[in-house]
Amino acid sequence: MADKKQVEAITSMEEDFAQWYTDVVKKADLASYTSVKGCIVFKPAGYAIWELIQRQLDDRFKAVGVENVYLPMFIPEGLLDKEKDHVEGFAPEVAWVTTGGLEPLQERLCVRPTSETLFCDFYKNEVQSYRDLPKVYNQWCSVVRWEKETRPFLRTREFLWQEGHTAHATAEEAEARTVQMLNVYADFLEQVLAIPVIKGKKTDKEKFAGAEATYTVEALMHDGKALQSGTSHNFGDGFAKAFGIQFTDKDNTLKYVHQTSWGMTTRLIGALIMVHGDNSGLVMPPRVAPTQITIVPIRQQAEGVLDKAYELKARLSAIGKDTWDGNASNYRVKVDDSDKSPGWKFAESEMRGVPVRIEIGPKDIDNGKAVLVRRDNGEKKEVSLDNIEAEVTATLQAMQKDMLERARAHRDAHTYTAHNAEEFKQLFAEKSGFVRAMWCGDRACEDKIKEELSVTSRCMPFEQEEVSGTCVCCGKPAKKMVYWGRAY
Amino acid sequence: MADKKQVEAITSMEEDFAQWYTDVVKKADLASYTSVKGCIVFKPAGYAIWELIQRQLDDRFKAVGVENVYLPMFIPEGLLDKEKDHVEGFAPEVAWVTTGGLEPLQERLCVRPTSETLFCDFYKNEVQSYRDLPKVYNQWCSVVRWEKETRPFLRTREFLWQEGHTAHATAEEAEARTVQMLNVYADFLEQVLAIPVIKGKKTDKEKFAGAEATYTVEALMHDGKALQSGTSHNFGDGFAKAFGIQFTDKDNTLKYVHQTSWGMTTRLIGALIMVHGDNSGLVMPPRVAPTQITIVPIRQQAEGVLDKAYELKARLSAIGKDTWDGNASNYRVKVDDSDKSPGWKFAESEMRGVPVRIEIGPKDIDNGKAVLVRRDNGEKKEVSLDNIEAEVTATLQAMQKDMLERARAHRDAHTYTAHNAEEFKQLFAEKSGFVRAMWCGDRACEDKIKEELSVTSRCMPFEQEEVSGTCVCCGKPAKKMVYWGRAY
Repeated sequence: MADKKQVEAITSMEEDFAQWYTDVVKKADLASYTSVKGCIVFKPAGYAIWELIQRQLDDRFKAVGVENVYLPMFIPEGLLDKEKDHVEGFAPEVAWVTTGGLEPLQERLCVRPTSETLFCDFYKNEVQSYRDLPKVYNQWCSVVRWEKETRPFLRTREFLWQEGHTAHATAEEAEARTVQMLNVYADFLEQVLAIPVIKGKKTDKEKFAGAEATYTVEALMHDGKALQSGTSHNFGDGFAKAFGIQFTDKDNTLKYVHQTSWGMTTRLIGALIMVHGDNSGLVMPPRVAPTQITIVPIRQQAEGVLDKAYELKARLSAIGKDTWDGNASNYRVKVDDSDKSPGWKFAESEMRGVPVRIEIGPKDIDNGKAVLVRRDNGEKKEVSLDNIEAEVTATLQAMQKDMLERARAHRDAHTYTAHNAEEFKQLFAEKSGFVRAMWCGDRACEDKIKEELSVTSRCMPFEQEEVSGTCVCCGKPAKKMVYWGRAY
Repeated sequence: MADKKQVEAITSMEEDFAQWYTDVVKKADLASYTSVKGCIVFKPAGYAIWELIQRQLDDRFKAVGVENVYLPMFIPEGLLDKEKDHVEGFAPEVAWVTTGGLEPLQERLCVRPTSETLFCDFYKNEVQSYRDLPKVYNQWCSVVRWEKETRPFLRTREFLWQEGHTAHATAEEAEARTVQMLNVYADFLEQVLAIPVIKGKKTDKEKFAGAEATYTVEALMHDGKALQSGTSHNFGDGFAKAFGIQFTDKDNTLKYVHQTSWGMTTRLIGALIMVHGDNSGLVMPPRVAPTQITIVPIRQQAEGVLDKAYELKARLSAIGKDTWDGNASNYRVKVDDSDKSPGWKFAESEMRGVPVRIEIGPKDIDNGKAVLVRRDNGEKKEVSLDNIEAEVTATLQAMQKDMLERARAHRDAHTYTAHNAEEFKQLFAEKSGFVRAMWCGDRACEDKIKEELSVTSRCMPFEQEEVSGTCVCCGKPAKKMVYWGRAY
């Protein structure tokens, strides 16, 4: 059977998770490799997910006062060099433009790996008085980091992202914005992508180059590995001092601004695959599913079947708006009227993760019914055509909610607690997932854990719990509880 | 008075059009220069226009079957070199990346000036059978061309655009798509940006590097100069042969695909400024105005004034959807509750081109009225608060329509006809605008006209008219009527 054949072409995730991932990317037609090493083509099915992420995240940004801008993709070398930690962090992995037109450039330009330095250069001229503050700007763009090992969506030399950059009059305001944006990310991940996250602070070892503090949202993939899904940085006045960004405050004194930055990237598409996918392919949360409903006509040559399918499409495409809280559009519906067999169409719509499939044939039409199949749990249901709008809406809502709960249950079932060094090692030897354990705060212990176990500190969660009194590495007294894990 | 002061800071367009343009860009807060030569920062007011252009153009694309993708920003030198005319056209103006990370690259990568070569490389692998055709893909991205002279929006080394790239089974289908997309552009320019255009074909001298035919939409700016506002190219099978893009057709023979590409850029923002702006600043067509309605409270300290302003904003923000044909969102409304004087606020909202200003003070509230001021013609009107939604909608609709008609009248009044060489020269010596005149078809005449008069052929319009029998340059028999002009 055609559907069997297509399903057989995916490696099962239990057998080889990495190969399963690659198969899904390919079979669901999300991306392909190119002649440019380490870069991918975002194909229509992959880019459509990014567009849905963009619109809904951007709406959430605008609701908290963010304005969009666009800055150049090039950074003059002298500008990148201004903040010491930052340049040390990024210089080894940037691409350099050395010729423009037919002439060699007097100063090299790097292709932005991130735009803190450009925003600083911009704010230096824009900000004179407290009246010019705060600046809460964001840009949607692509960035380049010359990675050695790449994987579609998860790590590519060029990727798409948004980067927010803000400037504030006080340290308190900058800290509040840093946390506020982390909460926007966490809420977006849970409510839109159905991915539950742990919110916390990065250790100094893991924080962003040039930041005073980095906050992160960490998600757990189906294979038990962690994925850093969004970060928010507080720079204090470090960049402001390096770039001379000063303003005259209400009390008529010159002060440095306090800055933040925060970003999420196309690796979220990788997260969607690895959190929700199964052995039949992608499973898309309804809110970011490029197609939410596929209508498959059965015996489509029979009189009236295709007409009924198009009529259903028209009915379902006309609703949906305001059915979801937050940003909403009408339902995205397709009729698969190609000349493939129904079985092939079922398998293809499953592979692409379409949340709801509606099957309708001559008998169904006679009975005033259709069959509705839910992608995440395979539930099949005969529904009345009179009532199909309400049935579809209820199914999409239930699926969105259940996917989050299922992902949360999976994460909780793969979150362990280690009370001492032995337990810690044993857990990472036997299990895969998050391990919660105490840490003394020394970089040396972190380095040692990484070297011995290939495990990194994911974050110091906001919700702390003293699971033991001592560091799982050195045994000294420890106050900080850390989520540890192997990460993408 | 505060408003006087701000208005005085703009050079009048009659005095110095170029300086007027620069002043508007700066005072309307659209863009600023950066440390990266030839590149600009799109500030919130400027980028918001681009976002509105993107959404409405993208909706029109999707309505004609276009799918969005994203390809890498880098092109390996060997790939750029494959099509001879194309590389000759672009190589002199590209930026080259020669180092990635800490290592020199084995092959230079150029930052895309346009992506025909990458799409070809992609389609070569994607297209095997007639079933894989057509491919109708588009991407929104930034491109780089190392221009020597730059001006904000009109010509910058990096700019934002969309580039559509299609592949078809037949020459007829490619030609039909080329013209279809030109019509989408013309319709978008007229209906959304209120900019009337001449549709036509470029001469061989002016066509795109590597194209068989280039079609263009040409607009006339307020100073009588032309602006090429969008182009659509038919490549025939030239690129397909250079890149080996073949498919098995229904008749089981191998054939080359036929390709097209088409693009519009952020220079449209420049067109909006130069077609609609006046000596008080920007005038935005309602459909792309980031703010459509500014509410200015008068005596805002008086009890109830600000509350009433916010109430009006809430009422107006709740409507607007589906008031316009095509893509529509709710009205974009702001209350200017800053501590500036009303006069200052009036001038500022005029400078930014906000279509409708509503003034409301204690007396108005007592009388159940507000004052509504229309940006394009300064019309002032007292309207009942009960009926303000309908008044605002009627005003926005009228303004959108009138702006197009006004621009069309201006263009028609600045379109001249030359019947011979003498008239042709005289018109360009005395007038500024389009001149319609016959051309024999020889490149030599085009070159001579450009050298002597700094005038280029804008297009051979689809609507031809034989205005004389002979070429305005050489006097030989001529069949082609051309729009000539000085261009940005």
